[in-house]
Amino acid sequence: MKHSSFLAQQFAFLEEADRLKNILRATPIHDDSRPENSGEHSWHVALYAMVLAGHAAPEVRIDRVIKMLLLHDLVEIDAGDTPIHGDFDAAEQEAKEKLAADRIFGLLPAAQALEFRALWDEFEAAETPDAIFGKSIDRVQPLALNMASGGGSWREYNVTLDQIDARVGTKVARGAPTVWTYIRARVEHFFVTQD
Amino acid sequence: MKHSSFLAQQFAFLEEADRLKNILRATPIHDDSRPENSGEHSWHVALYAMVLAGHAAPEVRIDRVIKMLLLHDLVEIDAGDTPIHGDFDAAEQEAKEKLAADRIFGLLPAAQALEFRALWDEFEAAETPDAIFGKSIDRVQPLALNMASGGGSWREYNVTLDQIDARVGTKVARGAPTVWTYIRARVEHFFVTQD
Repeated sequence: MKHSSFLAQQFAFLEEADRLKNILRATPIHDDSRPENSGEHSWHVALYAMVLAGHAAPEVRIDRVIKMLLLHDLVEIDAGDTPIHGDFDAAEQEAKEKLAADRIFGLLPAAQALEFRALWDEFEAAETPDAIFGKSIDRVQPLALNMASGGGSWREYNVTLDQIDARVGTKVARGAPTVWTYIRARVEHFFVTQD
Repeated sequence: MKHSSFLAQQFAFLEEADRLKNILRATPIHDDSRPENSGEHSWHVALYAMVLAGHAAPEVRIDRVIKMLLLHDLVEIDAGDTPIHGDFDAAEQEAKEKLAADRIFGLLPAAQALEFRALWDEFEAAETPDAIFGKSIDRVQPLALNMASGGGSWREYNVTLDQIDARVGTKVARGAPTVWTYIRARVEHFFVTQD
């Protein structure tokens, strides 16, 4: 009986998580056919972390980073996605996301709810090596998608290379400097050839 | 220079992987609004593994299972998805998937290509505890989605409870018997109330 209600809580969480597939991001998928959703984005950034693990600081535990990335966007089910190049009230968004985390992780059995919430809080705080690398990875993936799709959210928001350096570059370079050097050169080339 | 070409190979793989978001499965998402794609499915099953880890055999290393699940469907970019309740030639599909694995994992730097291919081969062989649990997880997620969406791929393929027991139940029960007991009761209830 206890076993069954434990599983019922876990499945309630997993079935609620499916709603992340309906949350749309500012970035299109590679062929510019439609916006990326936050479910498939979460898969893609977890794969990015797995592939780019060798570019992380030596103390980074990639298995924890992957778990953080699998969870990091779940709060968007209630709070929505806030495009990095869009306008939003950061404090208001943070409050919404904390309420969302209370509700969504709260669907899980108590010990697991605490464990997942702690991973999400750590990611959001961006202070530990694992969270810093995870945040870098989360920021680098849209750069590749925007280039593949011919501009993507840069086009929509009229973003300049200086704005990318300021809003994205600082975050990517903090956790994955060699990755930033590589992708920054491609982004610059993209902007030069688009003009 | 070497560093940069190494990253170029890794990004070629990650950008090719984006095509998985255009591969559609037989199962709809929870609200029956559209088919699930294999990219968001890969995220969802990795999350399932993370949540249901406590129901795995004690020797299962969940971090390896999560990595297998992040990679397991990439071959569908070339080989397509084969619905478990549909008709397909298993040997022909296996041959197509092996060619796809050669091409797609072959985009990565050599050592990483070998490492990822070995994880994929292990998952496909379904002989190690990690692969057996991963396969169970991959089979249990569509059951919940089919129930949430009012029948999903069961409705489309006129699937009976006996067929679910034979085609899905044996695989779920092999790696996650307590999970099967729980979800099997819900599936039976679903079928009874649909009649």
